[in-house]
Amino acid sequence: MTTSQTTLNVGATQLPASVVIRDCSVRDGLQPLDPVAPLQRVALVEALFAAGVSDVEVGAFVSPKAVPAMAGAAEVVAGVPPMGGRRRWVLVPNLRGAQMATDAGVGHLTVTVSASPAYSAKNVGMSVADSIAEVARIRAAAPDAVVDVVVSCAFGSPFDDDADDVTVASVAEVCAAVVAVGVDQITLADTTGMATPRRVAEVVGAVRNAAPGGASGAPSGAPSGALSGAPTGELGLHLHDTRGTALVNAWAAMALGVRRFDTSLGGLGGSPFAPGAGGNLATEDLVLVLDDMGITTGVSLDGLLAAGTQLAAVIGRALPSRVAAAGGIGTFG
Amino acid sequence: MTTSQTTLNVGATQLPASVVIRDCSVRDGLQPLDPVAPLQRVALVEALFAAGVSDVEVGAFVSPKAVPAMAGAAEVVAGVPPMGGRRRWVLVPNLRGAQMATDAGVGHLTVTVSASPAYSAKNVGMSVADSIAEVARIRAAAPDAVVDVVVSCAFGSPFDDDADDVTVASVAEVCAAVVAVGVDQITLADTTGMATPRRVAEVVGAVRNAAPGGASGAPSGAPSGALSGAPTGELGLHLHDTRGTALVNAWAAMALGVRRFDTSLGGLGGSPFAPGAGGNLATEDLVLVLDDMGITTGVSLDGLLAAGTQLAAVIGRALPSRVAAAGGIGTFG
Repeated sequence: MTTSQTTLNVGATQLPASVVIRDCSVRDGLQPLDPVAPLQRVALVEALFAAGVSDVEVGAFVSPKAVPAMAGAAEVVAGVPPMGGRRRWVLVPNLRGAQMATDAGVGHLTVTVSASPAYSAKNVGMSVADSIAEVARIRAAAPDAVVDVVVSCAFGSPFDDDADDVTVASVAEVCAAVVAVGVDQITLADTTGMATPRRVAEVVGAVRNAAPGGASGAPSGAPSGALSGAPTGELGLHLHDTRGTALVNAWAAMALGVRRFDTSLGGLGGSPFAPGAGGNLATEDLVLVLDDMGITTGVSLDGLLAAGTQLAAVIGRALPSRVAAAGGIGTFG
Repeated sequence: MTTSQTTLNVGATQLPASVVIRDCSVRDGLQPLDPVAPLQRVALVEALFAAGVSDVEVGAFVSPKAVPAMAGAAEVVAGVPPMGGRRRWVLVPNLRGAQMATDAGVGHLTVTVSASPAYSAKNVGMSVADSIAEVARIRAAAPDAVVDVVVSCAFGSPFDDDADDVTVASVAEVCAAVVAVGVDQITLADTTGMATPRRVAEVVGAVRNAAPGGASGAPSGAPSGALSGAPTGELGLHLHDTRGTALVNAWAAMALGVRRFDTSLGGLGGSPFAPGAGGNLATEDLVLVLDDMGITTGVSLDGLLAAGTQLAAVIGRALPSRVAAAGGIGTFG
């Protein structure tokens, strides 16, 4: 992992020459919907890999009672072998989920820790401190896995009555505590679409200062199956488009050197425990803009649009992504 | 008009400290819909002015056969007097429209010239050269008006078969020809949502080089009723959100010093002659982000949300703006 990657300029803004996209549609996108059969989820994951996506969150090892749509995650994992260096991520809320994921042969784990005390209680039934202690247990139990902690409500929280419960400083403290237990990377999540470029700049800056181990530079673990040159170990963003700000926030983050983004095909997504969360940044929306900029993703927009057609058919309704509806923009210069 | 305005920084990006918003919802937003009575349009314009919007496009003097929703423009104009320095803009497609606007007492005209030969034929039934000649006649007939030429398809066109028909260079040439006839300012329109930050940077740069008179600095005319400090005479952008890119394009433009934007309450909008154009950049989406950044607009987000509720009731359906649906984001720091 090198940080001396080439950059390019748009106007006076310096941007990374490449970014890594992790598509979460089969996990974050499908989790609030009626369950989709594991074999259909396998086909969606394969369509994403076929479009050139390197990282796909393929499911979650969570209680099927709490999140019925994620039942059968082991079947999905088994159906999408990690050949060719492609990375299968699964979300695990606790040690038990991490053990199931490891048993299923998954080497890349996303674990949720909330910067919001109130959302932590709703989402994982634990205090923030307890959920960080659980991350330490996961780290110890899965020493060979790449562990990515996704920090919820990192740009504001609608769940906490006291404005002091979630601040730039408190988010940075949570991230520092997470890095201290030895995780490989941190992803800052805008769970309910409250980020703005100003908030992104402040939080990314504070987290880099407080938690450099998970925010930039080489990963602390030896990533299994990592593609050469992919920024494992760097700070990433998981943006929701609740207020139409996901793309401008991604742009602002790239201007700060961030080059790892969670997205969701079609702009699906939203926690079942965060009403009105709105969908994720749509994979095709981000790729369209990056393509026109000459920023490398390895992802084919046409491949995404085809996968999106498949996804819309599976869920039986149109996708929220505006690019999915309007298509590409051709060339212009 | 000064260009030495204070700027502020978000990360490494330098942005204007204030921007001027011209809301087009009563014109661009309503024009493709079933007609709304003039008195209801007056109430919407008043709600926008009450929210602190300084510039409102209140209608169009066009053929009521071609655009039935714009009939009664003179009644709307008469209902919203220009007290307190507030600016009423009307769109005029030709000299006849400009004369009607002047007769109605309007001092601020938007005139469409297309950078796309094919769209020019569809939209105004003239060649690009003929429509620029018509702008010259409008300029001569209304010497005291502020004339803003809105250049359509300035970031790409889906209407032209030959990719060479609309290029960065051809857009700059059209703008130079428009400025040469003595208009006060140019607004670059992304009529069908094909802009990206890269395209914005290239087109804005080329237009500033080719047409400095309408792209920056002091206006060529003496703007009647212009608010002190408002960037009349500067290059503006009119962005459509067809592919969810309007806000990131506005951001990229601000990083280039652009501080004049057309928006539409609720994200309504779209030419009746450009199928699938998608709505405009939503006023409330832009203001939410600018508020959080500390960029002054003079506009109240709460006022806009109230006006949006009124607009949704008038048109009988939910607004496309995601901020209209999700509301504000409070403070965070």
